[in-house]
Amino acid sequence: MKLYTTPRAPNPRRVSIFLAEKGVTVPTVEIDIMTLEHKRPDFVARNPMMRVPVLELDDGTHISESIAICRYFEETHPEPSLFGTSPVERALIEMWQRRMEFNLMLPVAMSFRHLHPAMAEMEVPQVAEWGEANKPKVMEMLDWLDQDLGDRPYVAGDTFSVADITTLVAVDFMKPARLALPETCANIRRWYTDVSARPSAAA
Amino acid sequence: MKLYTTPRAPNPRRVSIFLAEKGVTVPTVEIDIMTLEHKRPDFVARNPMMRVPVLELDDGTHISESIAICRYFEETHPEPSLFGTSPVERALIEMWQRRMEFNLMLPVAMSFRHLHPAMAEMEVPQVAEWGEANKPKVMEMLDWLDQDLGDRPYVAGDTFSVADITTLVAVDFMKPARLALPETCANIRRWYTDVSARPSAAA
Repeated sequence: MKLYTTPRAPNPRRVSIFLAEKGVTVPTVEIDIMTLEHKRPDFVARNPMMRVPVLELDDGTHISESIAICRYFEETHPEPSLFGTSPVERALIEMWQRRMEFNLMLPVAMSFRHLHPAMAEMEVPQVAEWGEANKPKVMEMLDWLDQDLGDRPYVAGDTFSVADITTLVAVDFMKPARLALPETCANIRRWYTDVSARPSAAA
Repeated sequence: MKLYTTPRAPNPRRVSIFLAEKGVTVPTVEIDIMTLEHKRPDFVARNPMMRVPVLELDDGTHISESIAICRYFEETHPEPSLFGTSPVERALIEMWQRRMEFNLMLPVAMSFRHLHPAMAEMEVPQVAEWGEANKPKVMEMLDWLDQDLGDRPYVAGDTFSVADITTLVAVDFMKPARLALPETCANIRRWYTDVSARPSAAA
């Protein structure tokens, strides 16, 4: 088994944190996005979507999409559970994971990709107006999440889950996207301090 | 149990098709998006994201996000499986579901929301340049999917899955988005004829 990945990039980091929480170590192969290694034929054969990370199993099967890779490890290493254990819990964790992915991580990514000069060759065309339109979406979502986090320790409830991983990565992704977490978001700050102190956050 | 939903809208339709494939009937409450019923306090209390569908369980739990609702029914009604049965199959179906969601359904939705006059009050601001930028993304994805579908009957492999549901809804969503499936996409057309003929497609 091998994980083709790029250190520090947001989606690969979701898998790295997930594996650290599970206590699973997988040999990695580093893909350099800056030199367009993800567009070389040998990588495209592993993931035609040309995105990291990709998990290669010993039989040659390739699994891409960070959350699909996480789910594979949830199935093969059920403890500690990060996707929930009962039907309702699994549905609610999936709901929160997706809320954070579509309403926080995606708008942060859109701001970054459509406004940051370093992305001019990766995101064609860069649409500055769309990048700007996403900034208030991020702020609205943070304001709402901050109120909602007042009554529970973690994003999806009483236990740390994959929804916290997506949220942590999205909040840290705000820095290169040149977005600041408002001082007023006291509950998010309390949560952020807590989840950032977990050893997995260093992944 | 009640499903708050809007007939014919793309995301609610994913759940309707899923339930039809499972042979599960759930009482529904219709939410009229055109009269902004999804922004009324009683609905916002059910889903603060103000989106349909929402599943209300008998204990008052609310599950939103179409794929989270589908997963709940996968857990409570495992047959026929639409998310896969082994760890690898589950990961690959999730991979394909997400590939289709992020690289086909989302660009179709972006074209629709940022270019269609009927969406001017729902998508603020409409960024026409971003709507236009998504059209070639849709076409590139269709060209690639068409080649890939040459060697198997369904999107994620040999059996119908939730990935086919997302893809079918995305392809049908192309019509209001004023996008046409290219004549050259023979494999997608063969697949589309097949999945559209399933009784669930009428949902």
